[in-house]
Amino acid sequence: MVNVGVLGATGMVGQRFIELLGDHPDFEITALTASKRSAGKRYEDAVTWYLDSPIPEVARDIKVVDTDPAEVKDVEIVFSALPADIALNVEPKFAEAGMTVASNAAAMRMEPDVPLVIPEVNPEHLELLEIQQKNRGWEGSIVTNPNCSTIALTMTLKPLYDEFDIERVYVSTMQAVSGAGYDGVPSMAIVDNLVPFIGGEEEKMETETLELLGDLEDGVLTPANFGVSASCHRVAVVDGHTEAVFIEFADDFEVDDVEKSLREFQGMPQKLDLYSAPQPPIIVREEDNRPQPRMDRNAEKGMAVTVGRIRKDAAFDKSLRYVLVGHNTIRGAAGASILNAELINEIM
Amino acid sequence: MVNVGVLGATGMVGQRFIELLGDHPDFEITALTASKRSAGKRYEDAVTWYLDSPIPEVARDIKVVDTDPAEVKDVEIVFSALPADIALNVEPKFAEAGMTVASNAAAMRMEPDVPLVIPEVNPEHLELLEIQQKNRGWEGSIVTNPNCSTIALTMTLKPLYDEFDIERVYVSTMQAVSGAGYDGVPSMAIVDNLVPFIGGEEEKMETETLELLGDLEDGVLTPANFGVSASCHRVAVVDGHTEAVFIEFADDFEVDDVEKSLREFQGMPQKLDLYSAPQPPIIVREEDNRPQPRMDRNAEKGMAVTVGRIRKDAAFDKSLRYVLVGHNTIRGAAGASILNAELINEIM
Amino acid sequence: MVNVGVLGATGMVGQRFIELLGDHPDFEITALTASKRSAGKRYEDAVTWYLDSPIPEVARDIKVVDTDPAEVKDVEIVFSALPADIALNVEPKFAEAGMTVASNAAAMRMEPDVPLVIPEVNPEHLELLEIQQKNRGWEGSIVTNPNCSTIALTMTLKPLYDEFDIERVYVSTMQAVSGAGYDGVPSMAIVDNLVPFIGGEEEKMETETLELLGDLEDGVLTPANFGVSASCHRVAVVDGHTEAVFIEFADDFEVDDVEKSLREFQGMPQKLDLYSAPQPPIIVREEDNRPQPRMDRNAEKGMAVTVGRIRKDAAFDKSLRYVLVGHNTIRGAAGASILNAELINEIM
Amino acid sequence: MVNVGVLGATGMVGQRFIELLGDHPDFEITALTASKRSAGKRYEDAVTWYLDSPIPEVARDIKVVDTDPAEVKDVEIVFSALPADIALNVEPKFAEAGMTVASNAAAMRMEPDVPLVIPEVNPEHLELLEIQQKNRGWEGSIVTNPNCSTIALTMTLKPLYDEFDIERVYVSTMQAVSGAGYDGVPSMAIVDNLVPFIGGEEEKMETETLELLGDLEDGVLTPANFGVSASCHRVAVVDGHTEAVFIEFADDFEVDDVEKSLREFQGMPQKLDLYSAPQPPIIVREEDNRPQPRMDRNAEKGMAVTVGRIRKDAAFDKSLRYVLVGHNTIRGAAGASILNAELINEIM
Repeated sequence: MVNVGVLGATGMVGQRFIELLGDHPDFEITALTASKRSAGKRYEDAVTWYLDSPIPEVARDIKVVDTDPAEVKDVEIVFSALPADIALNVEPKFAEAGMTVASNAAAMRMEPDVPLVIPEVNPEHLELLEIQQKNRGWEGSIVTNPNCSTIALTMTLKPLYDEFDIERVYVSTMQAVSGAGYDGVPSMAIVDNLVPFIGGEEEKMETETLELLGDLEDGVLTPANFGVSASCHRVAVVDGHTEAVFIEFADDFEVDDVEKSLREFQGMPQKLDLYSAPQPPIIVREEDNRPQPRMDRNAEKGMAVTVGRIRKDAAFDKSLRYVLVGHNTIRGAAGASILNAELINEIM
Repeated sequence: MVNVGVLGATGMVGQRFIELLGDHPDFEITALTASKRSAGKRYEDAVTWYLDSPIPEVARDIKVVDTDPAEVKDVEIVFSALPADIALNVEPKFAEAGMTVASNAAAMRMEPDVPLVIPEVNPEHLELLEIQQKNRGWEGSIVTNPNCSTIALTMTLKPLYDEFDIERVYVSTMQAVSGAGYDGVPSMAIVDNLVPFIGGEEEKMETETLELLGDLEDGVLTPANFGVSASCHRVAVVDGHTEAVFIEFADDFEVDDVEKSLREFQGMPQKLDLYSAPQPPIIVREEDNRPQPRMDRNAEKGMAVTVGRIRKDAAFDKSLRYVLVGHNTIRGAAGASILNAELINEIM
Repeated sequence: MVNVGVLGATGMVGQRFIELLGDHPDFEITALTASKRSAGKRYEDAVTWYLDSPIPEVARDIKVVDTDPAEVKDVEIVFSALPADIALNVEPKFAEAGMTVASNAAAMRMEPDVPLVIPEVNPEHLELLEIQQKNRGWEGSIVTNPNCSTIALTMTLKPLYDEFDIERVYVSTMQAVSGAGYDGVPSMAIVDNLVPFIGGEEEKMETETLELLGDLEDGVLTPANFGVSASCHRVAVVDGHTEAVFIEFADDFEVDDVEKSLREFQGMPQKLDLYSAPQPPIIVREEDNRPQPRMDRNAEKGMAVTVGRIRKDAAFDKSLRYVLVGHNTIRGAAGASILNAELINEIM
Repeated sequence: MVNVGVLGATGMVGQRFIELLGDHPDFEITALTASKRSAGKRYEDAVTWYLDSPIPEVARDIKVVDTDPAEVKDVEIVFSALPADIALNVEPKFAEAGMTVASNAAAMRMEPDVPLVIPEVNPEHLELLEIQQKNRGWEGSIVTNPNCSTIALTMTLKPLYDEFDIERVYVSTMQAVSGAGYDGVPSMAIVDNLVPFIGGEEEKMETETLELLGDLEDGVLTPANFGVSASCHRVAVVDGHTEAVFIEFADDFEVDDVEKSLREFQGMPQKLDLYSAPQPPIIVREEDNRPQPRMDRNAEKGMAVTVGRIRKDAAFDKSLRYVLVGHNTIRGAAGASILNAELINEIM
């Protein structure tokens, strides 16, 4: 068993980390950090638990400590659910202290020597870790995962990008309220309503997607060369982001080939049979009214992306449309970081 | 005052007709039709009223009759909220009997001599009425309005189509449950959920939009020549459809010019100062989190379309994005038919 | 026209005040106050407007000032939508400066010389104003209205209390999210969920109800002498509180007599034909599935309370049950204060 | 392993039966029945699966048959999720054919020789089975469970009834939409709304509760002797009924004693350690904003009832209040029938 810690353990994503790590066969939670206000308390007393599963036994009695590497002893991996501004300061200190930081925070994602990784999409970008350690003189390292809506989108783009020539992607999201944290979206904004704006989300989808599908050569990343245009909206759904995707290819294509490509996709986590790897990573549904967030978000314990309504554009032969659902706080956040850590633990 | 009737007066759209006509300065409701089950009853007793306004006085005591022109006396205009299959049989009979049928049903929309009209977009298509009467030997006539999501989209495309060269439109909708009728969407399908499919809706948006923007010459309609690709979704909103629109133009453009074009747009209803004409027809909002359905659907008594988040595509200079909200059962249904009738009443 | 001001004009209840006063025939808004952050700005620029009606013309250009009587000139009545802690300090200063303060805040409600009034229920308690002015040496005065759920309940209890002998009242509320202010209830707490707790609400219902129905003699209030027991819950409704009421009477009774009593109830505002007085104040519906908040909250412009499902207890002859709906931010807040001011303006 | 069947296997409760039986250690699904339309199809093809868990492997390939004992071979127990009118005709035939029918339908509940049982509350009522078999000449038998809202209420009343002297119970429910079946509640009725009526529900709560707590002597049931008065409401929650309970006792009491009584309650299923028995059956929560349906419905796999806000009435020393949540389609339906069958299987 590898000892692990969770940084920012009392927030929504922190809680998902603890839920998913609660019965993990290889990782054992031995440290939990939070803000000063919580430090010193038992986890169960420090947290307002928002999930509908109970707090895992292993976490209840752990004494919460400050988010400071000096307080986190005998831990190999820390999972970071920190707010971006705190992450920026603190994550490097944990890496410096020799720990692997598997971070869900956006803070370090765009650093050229910090890999932004989805294990099914670009495991080879982990090469950057060595460069990072050398550059920064760290014994530990930082690996990040993309933002929630990007992960679900890019997992479905990966097999298509490998087989077809993508020219442009338009994506319109219908995102769950949990993505904004427990207090993030007032109910006045969402009952009988939706909000057509999520700060910074469109920019993340438009840049991270291309990085993930980019080529790394000699430590230099060349992003994929097509356009991504996103419109992001918040709807009255608790968990599970839905995305309507339109893709313009360079050439004509068969819908059956697209479906086959999605269905048969296997990434490195599947090949290595990692504990949290969904099998399959992409589920294709035939019903005309699926995927739906409440019905499909928990597929493969929330780690698979479900795709449906795969169809050609009526007017334009080279255009494809589909709808996807992914669990935003599992596949799109805590589960993503854990899968990154499992991959590193396995291959490095 | 012109005597008018409502066909299918007890359903959701029928009720909106009655609400909007209740205090109309030029139209007076004198006839209401419904299925046999309701015929013979006072309207107030026949209907399960779903709107949050009270039933207009003028309608309460009207005796509901069969949907049969023989039962509808001394009426010049009938508004049709009939289901498509019934409309197909019955609307022609009302036209034959000399009445103007302003129909919200899809049944006759695609007949080449039946005009499909949004008064702000293609009032000149009313020319077809004369051809229709000649073709069919009718004294009356049928005019139709497009489906709800098409109306809102096309109203915003019209000024852009007139000034810019549109190559392709992608639209992803988030539609209100009222669009499916009172019993149309089970609550199990929509609480903490959304449904990524609305039967026939995408096809209607993809064909009707081009017809509306098409050229009518010598009674022959040539649809507009660009591609429309739609993905339609049902969300937990009572009234008000939201649409995320992506437009590829042939050329580069300035966002300010687009905004100006939308803001300054005036259609024939505005020029003629028709009673139900919204002024302005398109409202442009600057806030980054608008339009929202609950906040914007009732703008201009539900007859305006509200547009926001007008912005360029990050990656592709010739692409535009915006979000719109329109009231689906007012601007997108009953109000649309009434505005058609006002226009005909004024100019023909 | 009487010049009026709104204290705390940018919050949810403040906005309702402005909406309701926008076209008031007797009151003209000439002053708006808010926190320092907003002072100096035009109202339209200071406020994030949450209502689906537009900001009334009369308010848009008013320069917002500090909540300080020195800043509020030539105003006779101020409506207070202040938070309780601020109200406690500030409302007395406005009264001292000679203004009538019609307050929706809880701060002063329990002062023995500050009348807590629903004009339909206990207009005679306004007698306290004279005592209050004498006690405190004020030229102005403070009148308060009860909390939102209490108002709706007590309006229906008043005619019953006058005719029957009430022994005990149990009430279980299903309250709208707007009651907590725009940011008060996170959507995570209310989508596919409800919250069985509203801080302080049960206590208010249990004490205010008895005060309102109490006897005032020689300036001393004797609360009504029966028990009220409340259980308060927040549900996914934007506006409109629903309450299930169980009443134990001392004697057997006829349901018809109860219905008649509710239907025929007329309070002083109805008799004086005050501008905001609902007519009737209590609407009785016969349908077995009414009242419903979305359908009934706006009855009589949101000022009436709608009652339905009036029925006897199955097991206990002396027990009555019914369900009521009242608009919490109109009848239950801003409209309540305005009706208080109209009554004072008329009779004092 | 005991072979079992599910009658009415394609509906909402039918699906819950299959979900819960999918990995049951003692019961193996070998027969599934549905209407003629589905008969002959594989279950997976016959059903529109509404649950967010996948269809259990064991059920997918079973050929659905008519709801007719002649079609259901080698089965000992059938679970009935039939509509009441069909159940009335069909359940006796299965009993006659020698099977134990564990029914969730209301049809036979009020027959004097058909036990209405909650295993934690009145296992001794199973005595009636022998009388039933003798009366009717059946080899099999029928056992029923109460309606969903009654089960949750009565489980919490049982320990109190045993220790305290209950005089009267008032209960106001906030019930989930799944209780009405997939199509039972239109979304138009529940988005930004609630419905204060559920047909027949109040009557069931008022009679079944007293039967369950009644005494069976020589085959004759004497219902408990106190009053129950219910007001039932449908709210925008998918699963999980919430109930606000007010109890008048004959005597004064200590809240601590009530809490202790609920916390320490153990029924026969707990003592026998039945597979589906929740341990504990009643969970008491201390937080002031719990229980909440989304957070607490799944406690103990949906089989426990969660109670919170236990407090005295402010005005009346002998009155108690609390709020409970129970999962309506698990503890309140399919799980209830399964626990009945487990109990019979164990003790008879």
